[in-house]
Amino acid sequence: MAPSSVRIYEVSPRDGLQNEATVVPTESKVELIRRLAASGLQDVEVTSFVRPRWIPQLSDAGELVPRLPAADGVAWWGLVPNAVGLERAIECGIRNVATFLSASETHNKKNVNRTVRESLAGIHEVVQVARDEGMSVRSYISTAFGCPYEGDVPADATRRIALALAESGADTIVLGDTVGMGNPAQVQALIRLLVDAGIPLDRLAVHFHDTRGTALANALAAWQAGIATFDASVAGLGGCPYAPGASGNLATEDLVYMFEGMGVSTGVHLPALAEAGVYAESVLGRELPGRYHQYHQGAQRRAARTA
Amino acid sequence: MAPSSVRIYEVSPRDGLQNEATVVPTESKVELIRRLAASGLQDVEVTSFVRPRWIPQLSDAGELVPRLPAADGVAWWGLVPNAVGLERAIECGIRNVATFLSASETHNKKNVNRTVRESLAGIHEVVQVARDEGMSVRSYISTAFGCPYEGDVPADATRRIALALAESGADTIVLGDTVGMGNPAQVQALIRLLVDAGIPLDRLAVHFHDTRGTALANALAAWQAGIATFDASVAGLGGCPYAPGASGNLATEDLVYMFEGMGVSTGVHLPALAEAGVYAESVLGRELPGRYHQYHQGAQRRAARTA
Repeated sequence: MAPSSVRIYEVSPRDGLQNEATVVPTESKVELIRRLAASGLQDVEVTSFVRPRWIPQLSDAGELVPRLPAADGVAWWGLVPNAVGLERAIECGIRNVATFLSASETHNKKNVNRTVRESLAGIHEVVQVARDEGMSVRSYISTAFGCPYEGDVPADATRRIALALAESGADTIVLGDTVGMGNPAQVQALIRLLVDAGIPLDRLAVHFHDTRGTALANALAAWQAGIATFDASVAGLGGCPYAPGASGNLATEDLVYMFEGMGVSTGVHLPALAEAGVYAESVLGRELPGRYHQYHQGAQRRAARTA
Repeated sequence: MAPSSVRIYEVSPRDGLQNEATVVPTESKVELIRRLAASGLQDVEVTSFVRPRWIPQLSDAGELVPRLPAADGVAWWGLVPNAVGLERAIECGIRNVATFLSASETHNKKNVNRTVRESLAGIHEVVQVARDEGMSVRSYISTAFGCPYEGDVPADATRRIALALAESGADTIVLGDTVGMGNPAQVQALIRLLVDAGIPLDRLAVHFHDTRGTALANALAAWQAGIATFDASVAGLGGCPYAPGASGNLATEDLVYMFEGMGVSTGVHLPALAEAGVYAESVLGRELPGRYHQYHQGAQRRAARTA
């Protein structure tokens, strides 16, 4: 039942950078994204089309997207909050978009100042337009494994939202552990619940944060439950500015190391990916929390000393 | 098959501190160990009885052990390299000892300057004496999931060593991923191999390092395979001075968070354990790699600001 190959959806240029105090120059973003795609990643969420003043770190979306290299077989994705954001994304040439809302009312309210019902209506509209344009759509359900304000989030709330998103026509529904509260048993139970509700495994993806150290264990559990699409962020870059305690996405290199070690194909060249993680550290000027890129860098330095 | 409760064996005072550049004062070690036991941990490896000049960080073993608090139901463990070390441990009042060797010849040679066969003979002698004294013995097999010098380590080498240790009478055989190379599939395969060879699950334990980010996922895999004893180190303190690239043990708090979230009982009070991790950071004067204690500290600071 566990897939023999997986697809990794890279979120560092968006979910990572939006949580950094530093505003990274467009040129450095282009270079990071180029390196990520060159390592073999086929899906990269490159920016967000929320109002520029909401997230200054990503306010260069309009300049960034046209500067992205042509990369065969690689999809650039943009996060869109609503129909206006979708229009901006389309104008830039983005063909793949991600919508978002939260499973918890409080988090949704604080994040987008809407009720979950209002968000679902807005997303429905976005999905219709995007599909009419022949675009791909993925839809995040944030706080699906716990909310920093409400604590436990009932799995049934996530189930109802997931069904509504599936009904709207989202290609993929992404279960987000926004503040890293989930555990492997919960991950497997939620996936089973959604599959039992009629959502096929190949329309589900998972998005884990490592706030409490559980991200990779949760990814393993999701894979065991049949999930084949995993969000991750190079070097563990990222978080969520509206979620207290959110720190670090699942590190892409750590995920690739685990899967490749298990014989599960990712299509990613691990040393090149680790180098992209080292590059991300150099751009941000601080150590990033992922493990494998640190190991890689240490090994390179030892090799240089003994050479 | 997966156990409903687990036992956590805390290694930070030994495996953690032996890899720190700082020599921690005996008094601070006593306080750390007191806090660890107070959080509910029932097994703590407190020091090593290798020659003091080999590992200066642990050269205070003789002063440390007599100063440990009386703690009902808590076992203090000491690492012993040979019969001389065992004698020193007994003189201090230690009643539970851990022996060690490596599954890889090269690592064993570099670590203790013996062949694996020589090490097994020495351990056999130690186990006999310890058992005659009515002591408990656990035996580490290091590099069981990979060697920094040899790369892959054949599972059959570990199987033969494990059988010899079981034959000698070691109560528990500990599979050590000394440089964090293992993956969940490999972990489950090795456990199955040993069980099929006749070693009961309750005589096996696992000891993971997080060098490549896989420690908690490997622990999950081991638990799924029936393992109930897990080594961990508060805040992820530790490594191995003779293993290039070894960085950080599995963090005890992250392990406890995962298991308790899954309804698997650990007997540990998580906030108290996280505070012990914060204390370890203050003693060492640097940030330690575990996640949960960092989350805990951030949450405490936010609560203090809003109070």
